[in-house]
Amino acid sequence: MVTQDRAIRTRRTILTAAAKVFEERGYQAATISEILTTAGVTKGALYFHFASKEDLAEGVISEQDQQLPIPGRACKVQQLVDTVAVHAYHLQTDPLVRAGVRLSLDQQAQGLNRSAPFLRWGEIGVELLTTAQAQGELLPHVVPAETAEVLVGAFAGVQAMSQATSNYQDLPRRVTSLLRHILPSVVMPSVLAAVDVTEGRGAAVHNELQQTHSMQPAAALT
Amino acid sequence: MVTQDRAIRTRRTILTAAAKVFEERGYQAATISEILTTAGVTKGALYFHFASKEDLAEGVISEQDQQLPIPGRACKVQQLVDTVAVHAYHLQTDPLVRAGVRLSLDQQAQGLNRSAPFLRWGEIGVELLTTAQAQGELLPHVVPAETAEVLVGAFAGVQAMSQATSNYQDLPRRVTSLLRHILPSVVMPSVLAAVDVTEGRGAAVHNELQQTHSMQPAAALT
Repeated sequence: MVTQDRAIRTRRTILTAAAKVFEERGYQAATISEILTTAGVTKGALYFHFASKEDLAEGVISEQDQQLPIPGRACKVQQLVDTVAVHAYHLQTDPLVRAGVRLSLDQQAQGLNRSAPFLRWGEIGVELLTTAQAQGELLPHVVPAETAEVLVGAFAGVQAMSQATSNYQDLPRRVTSLLRHILPSVVMPSVLAAVDVTEGRGAAVHNELQQTHSMQPAAALT
Repeated sequence: MVTQDRAIRTRRTILTAAAKVFEERGYQAATISEILTTAGVTKGALYFHFASKEDLAEGVISEQDQQLPIPGRACKVQQLVDTVAVHAYHLQTDPLVRAGVRLSLDQQAQGLNRSAPFLRWGEIGVELLTTAQAQGELLPHVVPAETAEVLVGAFAGVQAMSQATSNYQDLPRRVTSLLRHILPSVVMPSVLAAVDVTEGRGAAVHNELQQTHSMQPAAALT
């Protein structure tokens, strides 16, 4: 148990170092030896967890949805909004999530499978939207797969624009604005009226998650 | 006049070469000497047009909206849709436009002002949406600046997702899908019913532009 904890910590240390190096150099120019130096771990430890630079990058990329699941909601549209809002909050606050999203959009990263995170986020969206539709929350014409793709693609661009113009400071405002432009085309008006898409939503749900986690220490360890 | 034509052609040759090198190497790793070799022009010719690598990259970036204006329409929402659709068509067919958009999203391009194209596309959107609003085409609550920002950001992500998953093959479908998810939140239903957002729109408007251009050779030279 203690050994496993240590392995998880080492893996996290390596991923954080890799994220930092990828952020500074870009995927193409980054080297494993620089990641080793930054992480302060042995070559053996690194290769125990990751076989290659590509493997490291995919590890960083897949961190962006590891902090889910977010709290279940009776209203699945609210749960979808919360998923988007918490991801935006992580982008603002967690360098590892930020590096993962940037790698997914690094068009110079040859040999890296960058479609995986788009597909994974798409699947999360399809699942929530399909349940929402079954519960009668969506307008009759909605195709969950199509709406999920639009949301994932649009979010990727809105975060890139926020990074380029304000270094993520205006991200919550931009995400609220995006959702207010897409949800009315998808969600029943009576449902939409009760959904919270305000700018503080991401931070609020993140805090809710932290509290739930700290109240259940025993459960978290099993 | 002939000299000016030659200067325009040389500038275009240099920008095309720069686009190719930036695409292959990324902004950070690209060098002026490689761009010189690819373009096959003299150092003097290059520096006559561009002062630095940054200047070259900004030249490539600003090409993405140089092929405008697109045809004026009585319905400004249609003109906005046409602007988006033609840009998507150029992304599929013109390597220079593609390189410009990729540079705008290259988060490793240090020292490059990447917010400029977002702002320029935003201004084009605000102008069209403001006129559309004055003509009664939009829903009463719409704020043109906010909707323009959402459209520009969302488009940037949808094109990146299309590039990552299909190398731009599915871009027209994705753009139609994005517009069908955003326009109903913004446009009066009676106006929207008459707007063409089908997948072939970009190619059709591009052909319309080519025909208009070839029918007015004398006017084009003045």
